[in-house]
Amino acid sequence: MEEKIKVAILGATGFTGEKLVELLLKHPGVEIAYLGALLEKPTLYSKLFPKFEGKINLICELPKISEAVEKADIFFLALPHTISFKIAPSILKAKKKVIDLSADYRLKNSKIYEEYYKKKHQDKRNLKQAVYGLVEFLKEEIQKADLIANPGCYPISIILALAPLLKEDMVKLRIIVDSKSSVSGGGRKPLIDYHYLSVSNNIWAYKPFFHQHTPEIVEVLKYLSKKEAEITFIPHVVGIEAGIYSTIYVDFKKKIDTKGVFKLYQNYYRDAPFVRIKESLPKLKDVVRTNFCDIGFSLDGSGRKGVICSCIDNLMKGASGNAIQNMNVMYGFDETEGLL
Amino acid sequence: MEEKIKVAILGATGFTGEKLVELLLKHPGVEIAYLGALLEKPTLYSKLFPKFEGKINLICELPKISEAVEKADIFFLALPHTISFKIAPSILKAKKKVIDLSADYRLKNSKIYEEYYKKKHQDKRNLKQAVYGLVEFLKEEIQKADLIANPGCYPISIILALAPLLKEDMVKLRIIVDSKSSVSGGGRKPLIDYHYLSVSNNIWAYKPFFHQHTPEIVEVLKYLSKKEAEITFIPHVVGIEAGIYSTIYVDFKKKIDTKGVFKLYQNYYRDAPFVRIKESLPKLKDVVRTNFCDIGFSLDGSGRKGVICSCIDNLMKGASGNAIQNMNVMYGFDETEGLL
Amino acid sequence: MEEKIKVAILGATGFTGEKLVELLLKHPGVEIAYLGALLEKPTLYSKLFPKFEGKINLICELPKISEAVEKADIFFLALPHTISFKIAPSILKAKKKVIDLSADYRLKNSKIYEEYYKKKHQDKRNLKQAVYGLVEFLKEEIQKADLIANPGCYPISIILALAPLLKEDMVKLRIIVDSKSSVSGGGRKPLIDYHYLSVSNNIWAYKPFFHQHTPEIVEVLKYLSKKEAEITFIPHVVGIEAGIYSTIYVDFKKKIDTKGVFKLYQNYYRDAPFVRIKESLPKLKDVVRTNFCDIGFSLDGSGRKGVICSCIDNLMKGASGNAIQNMNVMYGFDETEGLL
Amino acid sequence: MEEKIKVAILGATGFTGEKLVELLLKHPGVEIAYLGALLEKPTLYSKLFPKFEGKINLICELPKISEAVEKADIFFLALPHTISFKIAPSILKAKKKVIDLSADYRLKNSKIYEEYYKKKHQDKRNLKQAVYGLVEFLKEEIQKADLIANPGCYPISIILALAPLLKEDMVKLRIIVDSKSSVSGGGRKPLIDYHYLSVSNNIWAYKPFFHQHTPEIVEVLKYLSKKEAEITFIPHVVGIEAGIYSTIYVDFKKKIDTKGVFKLYQNYYRDAPFVRIKESLPKLKDVVRTNFCDIGFSLDGSGRKGVICSCIDNLMKGASGNAIQNMNVMYGFDETEGLL
Repeated sequence: MEEKIKVAILGATGFTGEKLVELLLKHPGVEIAYLGALLEKPTLYSKLFPKFEGKINLICELPKISEAVEKADIFFLALPHTISFKIAPSILKAKKKVIDLSADYRLKNSKIYEEYYKKKHQDKRNLKQAVYGLVEFLKEEIQKADLIANPGCYPISIILALAPLLKEDMVKLRIIVDSKSSVSGGGRKPLIDYHYLSVSNNIWAYKPFFHQHTPEIVEVLKYLSKKEAEITFIPHVVGIEAGIYSTIYVDFKKKIDTKGVFKLYQNYYRDAPFVRIKESLPKLKDVVRTNFCDIGFSLDGSGRKGVICSCIDNLMKGASGNAIQNMNVMYGFDETEGLL
Repeated sequence: MEEKIKVAILGATGFTGEKLVELLLKHPGVEIAYLGALLEKPTLYSKLFPKFEGKINLICELPKISEAVEKADIFFLALPHTISFKIAPSILKAKKKVIDLSADYRLKNSKIYEEYYKKKHQDKRNLKQAVYGLVEFLKEEIQKADLIANPGCYPISIILALAPLLKEDMVKLRIIVDSKSSVSGGGRKPLIDYHYLSVSNNIWAYKPFFHQHTPEIVEVLKYLSKKEAEITFIPHVVGIEAGIYSTIYVDFKKKIDTKGVFKLYQNYYRDAPFVRIKESLPKLKDVVRTNFCDIGFSLDGSGRKGVICSCIDNLMKGASGNAIQNMNVMYGFDETEGLL
Repeated sequence: MEEKIKVAILGATGFTGEKLVELLLKHPGVEIAYLGALLEKPTLYSKLFPKFEGKINLICELPKISEAVEKADIFFLALPHTISFKIAPSILKAKKKVIDLSADYRLKNSKIYEEYYKKKHQDKRNLKQAVYGLVEFLKEEIQKADLIANPGCYPISIILALAPLLKEDMVKLRIIVDSKSSVSGGGRKPLIDYHYLSVSNNIWAYKPFFHQHTPEIVEVLKYLSKKEAEITFIPHVVGIEAGIYSTIYVDFKKKIDTKGVFKLYQNYYRDAPFVRIKESLPKLKDVVRTNFCDIGFSLDGSGRKGVICSCIDNLMKGASGNAIQNMNVMYGFDETEGLL
Repeated sequence: MEEKIKVAILGATGFTGEKLVELLLKHPGVEIAYLGALLEKPTLYSKLFPKFEGKINLICELPKISEAVEKADIFFLALPHTISFKIAPSILKAKKKVIDLSADYRLKNSKIYEEYYKKKHQDKRNLKQAVYGLVEFLKEEIQKADLIANPGCYPISIILALAPLLKEDMVKLRIIVDSKSSVSGGGRKPLIDYHYLSVSNNIWAYKPFFHQHTPEIVEVLKYLSKKEAEITFIPHVVGIEAGIYSTIYVDFKKKIDTKGVFKLYQNYYRDAPFVRIKESLPKLKDVVRTNFCDIGFSLDGSGRKGVICSCIDNLMKGASGNAIQNMNVMYGFDETEGLL
């Protein structure tokens, strides 16, 4: 019998950490070996999350990195931004692998990182070798990587929808993206803004033009397609439990028909088990609690304007599910293992 | 003591009809004199809507128009599209006033009406004299009108946000509008698509490029500003109870600053009691159950791109509240009477 | 022209304080003269709550009681428990009136207060003269009162439903009450337990048998009916925005019929404009955002067992609306003024 | 390699049918071989439910029973009441197994069936052999059964909570049950009562004393415990997506302590993988989308009164999940196969 991969989750009490535990418990090839979080005292994880009673019997504690590093083969860092780059170096030095769910290793251009995250980058050395964890486009790089920068939730929904069009040079480079997200993207924080009554039945746009995911989208799309798109990105919070729905407005360079666009997408994602190209515009609820990204589109009468809608569950394909998809590729598991 | 205006509501059991009853009951200058709806047998209205018990003591019935026409001074038609133009002529002939909440008298170009509503227009004579009921721009016309075409809910949120920029010729005419609406805009229909479980926690785009409100927006903006904008309009349903949130993407012809835009809007709406210009992007919940339209905006760093967000309650400023605002102007009441 | 009553609200930024502002702004007989809250620095109230822009132009500040006391005729204390009894004495001493929305003056038995609220009562002198603010039963006392103890939200829904049966000695005294409440009853606190994702789609029972409202229900029912009921009270939080729904299980002493019960309730509440006796079981949404308490009931086949369901909006009849109803009675306004 | 069990689902387009498909697709020991539903024309199932695209490639059609009967080894009947007893006989005659999710075979006393379901029972012969599908108490019978009456959703939550106390003769037999259910229990029907706006943020009690699940609870508890309890059962609809939360009020015959009750329950369910005994009152969301039934309880100070709270997902343990648990036992699979 083969030995299971030992995984650690740092930040195990946040939304993405909790979801990682839930998913990894169902994964036949791994064993959760360590759980760390910002806790006052070590606590049985199933005490913190009663739904895991009988399923996991681990203590969760404030980790000493020097000790924690011994406990697993791969570390999921489900930490706030500007924390991961303090922790990842020690883990990598110990020859363990890291999948970082924060933004710390996503932007190759550390100046832009510092502009958007308001903090100096403290691990530029490893930043160079970090691979952007989008299996649909960077599978080979991910297979060989030791450090994965798991993408932001908005970028995943947007890059998957736009990359084929940009790579084929089919659209003009001024693109508008209107995204709607549940509050789960904001993390488990006791803020009045996340109070049930602040969120329920509400919608609001925020961080217009300057959301920190904008440069990530631009940089990655450029890396993938060699085109530098000008992305106008306005995210919105909506009073729902889960998911992101991105509506993307493009102008085609040439007149195009529906069938052509459909084929293009199908072709691009023929080997991508988690991308589903729809014949009509997708509905968010079809992807909630799955690792799928559903993409649909529509053209106007002229065949020159189009709208592409893509949706994901922001804790699954938008974070923890995608992180496990990366792990599967890194370790040679089937890409969908534990995710269907 | 002055006599009260007698009002009738046809379509009193739909969402907008019910809201009209609720609002008109609080209006000191009117008396609800007649309630009509598609009912099998005449029924006490407060039996149909228990929340009105003790507040209204009227029978609601399938109206015979020839008789109903005698019962009130003004008729609110809260009917499905393609019904109003069969009923309005008799009412107008009897020298009574009509506020039509359907689309039947909104589009002056009846060919476009027929293209979008799939039915021949049957009252082109009155269509000519119908006034588009947007008090913020057409107050004088409304004062003298006998037939008001109460605007669509999406158009209200969008026209109020765009008209100042178009009238001042400040933006390029290719404009993108991404609107998010609660399901209440769809009417009280027993459809699986409106089942609690179909809607809750869901988001989906629908009728891309071809929603019937698109030509209304274009035609009215042209009438107000003499500019023919090219509107890309994608509406979405979101799983919330009430409201519309429109996010509008514009390109400015010249570099502009926040202060300038703010002043422009404030100036345009200085006499509009229901339009509030915000210093930041608005939140939907601040307008829910009010007749306000909150408008906020943001510019990108270049001062050439902007986003304008506007929100309304789709049953209030988006339908019944706006209809009463029209009535107030028609009868010389204070514009806000019964609406604050 | 008569002068308006000047009102102050202390605790103006909580849910009940905010609701008081909203309601008092519509009340023709009063003027909001002062707003206090636990703020770091004085702030325009409409900055804190943008929905009040253009409606109120007052600064809200951390009050110095000695100064604040001069600013109004009547003070609404929308404060956490164990704060009011430190503030009310100064106000009363200055011959101003107080309506306290906390629990501090509800229980005449200060030992029980101390048992449930874990703090020594610090104003037993005024406790004696405090009148329990339930207009439906204690109108005369309220007319003469200077200090009103506004009831708890659960007790209002339960006492209104039970008092007639107890006063008429119709039911056995072992009574079970199962209440369901929205999270708005818990106040505006940035707790993880009130996070959107903790509450949405959830239900849980809490404080079984020992909720602090239990002795309030028992004491008040005894005061009104001279019967000491044994109340088993289990409250639940449900993932909705507003309201309390109480389901009350009683055994009748004698066989009874529906008509008899209905008449009894109708008779008791014939002069109570906010209590509506329904012919079937009520629905919560019919009372949300109103000051009504809807009561319905059903008997089993034997005529010996009954269930009474009552529902209120917990911020309206359950708190702020009821407080204004008290004020109306204290100052000789119509009981429903500003509340319909 | 062992052959997979062939399963058919009749009523595959309802909520429980859809959930059966979702669950059975993950079950390693079965193959979905046939899908029937009330459809106008045969339709690809994944067209009806896009979320199943790429997972199942079966046509769903209006079944001819004589032909359908050949297509599977076991038939799940996810049909409305009073339909199953017309179909089950043919299937049983063909020596195939049936798990009926309707009420048709739950009540041994067909007179009571007829009283509550308003229709004569048409298959009394098979009614005799039908086994009530509650694995936690009737495992041996289920192993040998050909016809399973899958329990009602409310009864499952209530019987699991009460059976140990009744079997041990610990409580008085007058018991009150207050249940709260999501609207998913009502089935996928296009009714105004299930419209998003009718349900969201609403609570109402319905069918007081006379809900059709009441006799089922009484009959089964009597069969299990030889005690005939008098159950007062009031169900409520609450505006949430999934789940049932039952609050049960009991009087103990003797003074008891928490530890004793806890041990009793733990002992009863030590071999029941889906029943979790909690140290505090359960929260609904911990069981949503699982097959667990969480049970918690609390005693009052006297040790003579208790409240037991139990919760399930009404489509999982309350219907389809429980049905598969039955199938697992019938075919010798692990009881939890496909359900964790």
